[in-house]
Amino acid sequence: MSSLMFVKKHAFYCARNFGSQSYKKVRIKDILQGRKNNESADVQGWTRSVRKMKNHVFVDINDGSTAQNIQLVMSKDLFDRRVQFGTSISVRGKIQQSIQNEKNKYEILCDDLDVLGTYAEDAPLKKNASYDMQHLRSLLHLRMRHYKMAGVLRARNCVEMAMHKFFQEKGFLHIHTPILTSSDCETGGNVFSVQPDQIDEQESSDSSEDFFGAPAFLSVSGQLHLEACAMGMGDVYTLSPAFRSEKSHTRKHLNEFRMLEAELAHSKDLADMVNLMESSVKYLLQELLLNCSLDLATIEKDSPGHLSKLEKVASKQYVIMSYTEAIELLEKHQKHLQTASPSWGEDLNSDHETFLVQHCDSTPVFIVDFPSCSKPFYMPVNSDGKTVAAVDLIFPEVGELCGGSLRESDLDKLTSRLTALGLLPAYEWYLDLRRYGNTPHAGYGMGFDRFVTFALDIRNIRDAVPFPRYKNSCVL
Amino acid sequence: MSSLMFVKKHAFYCARNFGSQSYKKVRIKDILQGRKNNESADVQGWTRSVRKMKNHVFVDINDGSTAQNIQLVMSKDLFDRRVQFGTSISVRGKIQQSIQNEKNKYEILCDDLDVLGTYAEDAPLKKNASYDMQHLRSLLHLRMRHYKMAGVLRARNCVEMAMHKFFQEKGFLHIHTPILTSSDCETGGNVFSVQPDQIDEQESSDSSEDFFGAPAFLSVSGQLHLEACAMGMGDVYTLSPAFRSEKSHTRKHLNEFRMLEAELAHSKDLADMVNLMESSVKYLLQELLLNCSLDLATIEKDSPGHLSKLEKVASKQYVIMSYTEAIELLEKHQKHLQTASPSWGEDLNSDHETFLVQHCDSTPVFIVDFPSCSKPFYMPVNSDGKTVAAVDLIFPEVGELCGGSLRESDLDKLTSRLTALGLLPAYEWYLDLRRYGNTPHAGYGMGFDRFVTFALDIRNIRDAVPFPRYKNSCVL
Repeated sequence: MSSLMFVKKHAFYCARNFGSQSYKKVRIKDILQGRKNNESADVQGWTRSVRKMKNHVFVDINDGSTAQNIQLVMSKDLFDRRVQFGTSISVRGKIQQSIQNEKNKYEILCDDLDVLGTYAEDAPLKKNASYDMQHLRSLLHLRMRHYKMAGVLRARNCVEMAMHKFFQEKGFLHIHTPILTSSDCETGGNVFSVQPDQIDEQESSDSSEDFFGAPAFLSVSGQLHLEACAMGMGDVYTLSPAFRSEKSHTRKHLNEFRMLEAELAHSKDLADMVNLMESSVKYLLQELLLNCSLDLATIEKDSPGHLSKLEKVASKQYVIMSYTEAIELLEKHQKHLQTASPSWGEDLNSDHETFLVQHCDSTPVFIVDFPSCSKPFYMPVNSDGKTVAAVDLIFPEVGELCGGSLRESDLDKLTSRLTALGLLPAYEWYLDLRRYGNTPHAGYGMGFDRFVTFALDIRNIRDAVPFPRYKNSCVL
Repeated sequence: MSSLMFVKKHAFYCARNFGSQSYKKVRIKDILQGRKNNESADVQGWTRSVRKMKNHVFVDINDGSTAQNIQLVMSKDLFDRRVQFGTSISVRGKIQQSIQNEKNKYEILCDDLDVLGTYAEDAPLKKNASYDMQHLRSLLHLRMRHYKMAGVLRARNCVEMAMHKFFQEKGFLHIHTPILTSSDCETGGNVFSVQPDQIDEQESSDSSEDFFGAPAFLSVSGQLHLEACAMGMGDVYTLSPAFRSEKSHTRKHLNEFRMLEAELAHSKDLADMVNLMESSVKYLLQELLLNCSLDLATIEKDSPGHLSKLEKVASKQYVIMSYTEAIELLEKHQKHLQTASPSWGEDLNSDHETFLVQHCDSTPVFIVDFPSCSKPFYMPVNSDGKTVAAVDLIFPEVGELCGGSLRESDLDKLTSRLTALGLLPAYEWYLDLRRYGNTPHAGYGMGFDRFVTFALDIRNIRDAVPFPRYKNSCVL
């Protein structure tokens, strides 16, 4: 008898046929799209409403797969009195076309009902109550049961998968850039530092000794790591958490956020990146319009015109202007601004960004060639000697959605800039990327959560992520 | 004149037709698969070898998209002397079927060559040199230019996309669980704590004041957050960084690692999860065998038999045994063990795991129903009163690949367990998940990097990730 036979013969679990059934589940989304008509199915979900008739009980349930509920039809005998708003149930039945229900074409005629869990009467989320996002935020662990937050999570899933599809089809490789890093791409402060929570007193007499042998921080950007990968793998991207310890309490900032970053190998023209940014953002919006139409329709009810705004941004050609042109435009229209227009060399604030986008008929605006003074060391200076080959994409409502630049590929220029900033020898490795098999390249980052706030008409970015982290709040 | 017209007319960048060309690139992978035959194409890559003949020069280049190089054919006039090993070049030419080259069916007849960057002679990676993974690890920022590490990164990309495909097709939603958390699912120590690097002395007189108003840690698992999402959205999963501050220097551990975690709503049978684990792991292996055949063939050269090992694990039915059966088996075969067999209630060590898998003909082994004493509060106790409904998947070579359990859904049992552990009121929110719309559920985690070490026959997990973090090493 072989070893395996021994186990097969004796294992208790094999005796009860453990592992022989395959994992199958029917989603309400698939039923409502007509893919399961006339099939028998097991469906699980949470009760939304119960209507008792003379002979039958009609129960609407939702399983999270779609904004829409499905109607269950069951005999009075089958019905269980515990089934109320919020109850989790499992039913078995036949999927059939609905005669009476005009909204949903399909329903389930049930022949089996199982109550999986109840809903306490003191529940913070009540039936038929209307909640705004700010109130839901105070119920962080429960708010995904509400259709608004559920819609946000479905949309995030859709946007993320669209993002992978877009970049994978173009041959980009997804890279896991590290979260812990000893390198700080922005060198601008605002980082979180990391150390073991329990420092072993006995082992280390000097409790300030670093776990990693050097200070470790949370990544503010995966750019430099992506550059290292691009210089051998070609085009790469990452969708990764990033962190800033900013204390600002704004509706556009989080301390932990998701960022798409892409690095284009062999690229020496900002136009490559502008094209990639525009086509990727439009693709994400088109996929969202296609796959999350029910959730977007719900948003349209509260914000009429939202859908046509999305369709416009998903199809219209974006405007491109230089930073210098933007300044001229702002100066010329000073009377329409709430704040003073910036002098050349100063940053644009959100008032300026709002004006520029509105001025361009609410079309997203690319601003290129920023003044070199305020930009990081890796951006190459243009031939004018005053500006760098950098680009921001300004979106309606959210302001800066993407930011990117060419990367300085001239070893001498990069060396002298790092020397002047006192960043050698910490960035010797970065210079190596130019010494060995150097190639011109460019890259950009897009705020994933900020994109979601735009696409779903969310006022505060804290409502665009499942578990927001901001000053004084790291709940759960 | 409308606002938009003003911009269009005046913008400098529109004048030079910025943004009109679409972003296109031809990958060597696509050419070698015959998809571009007879087309003209721009291709960029790094030179692997140069062979000068009487009238022509043959240059092999690689662009990271595949393990294979493509041959460029160019006239002596077109050739540039700077083109040597490691040079980054861009060529334009016609793709044609190769007559002489038996290995690669396609080549490029070049009519344009552009040298994008050179390769310094003092480069640490030399032509024709053979490097082992350990040496490459000392060149963290350059090693992705070597075919071994490039293959790892391509495989990681493949496995990640396969994972998304598998779960998305089954209707699971991908959730961004937070990295920063005030909740510790394992309550076992070994966490990293986080605080702003620069504490503003002026603003906060008490420098020990927490940024988030409470201590913040790096996530050791997204389980509890996934559970919150599952209780309204149905089945969910995450592929997220996770962190442990373990000091152990083993070839199986990292301080930062990627973990797949899935939570199955409405599931009360461990068999659901065992089936999901087995089918997902097999799916990942099958996708890898299909899409990374060239990289796997390279590994097969160094480790003959590796491919058939993968094929076996990708197709054979896995063994299932209870923890108690495993102990009996180990006791019976004590003479084949290097360490003492464990008494009932003790953990299995890697010697035990290795024996069990070998005993089962190197088939992966599910071990179910672990003793309750050593397991966390959320695992439900079985009817025997001694074991919990938990499962580990033990893989050849890597040991524990997956671990999961049913989640205690009985509010009273969970409350008394949390009370006994002194974890109330910190986990009141977790009890809420059972109070409102409770449903039985189960979940598991899989070490992504550990899967890669198995699939690619990697000895040390530090060589399975692009930027490994371990005690005394957080390089770059």
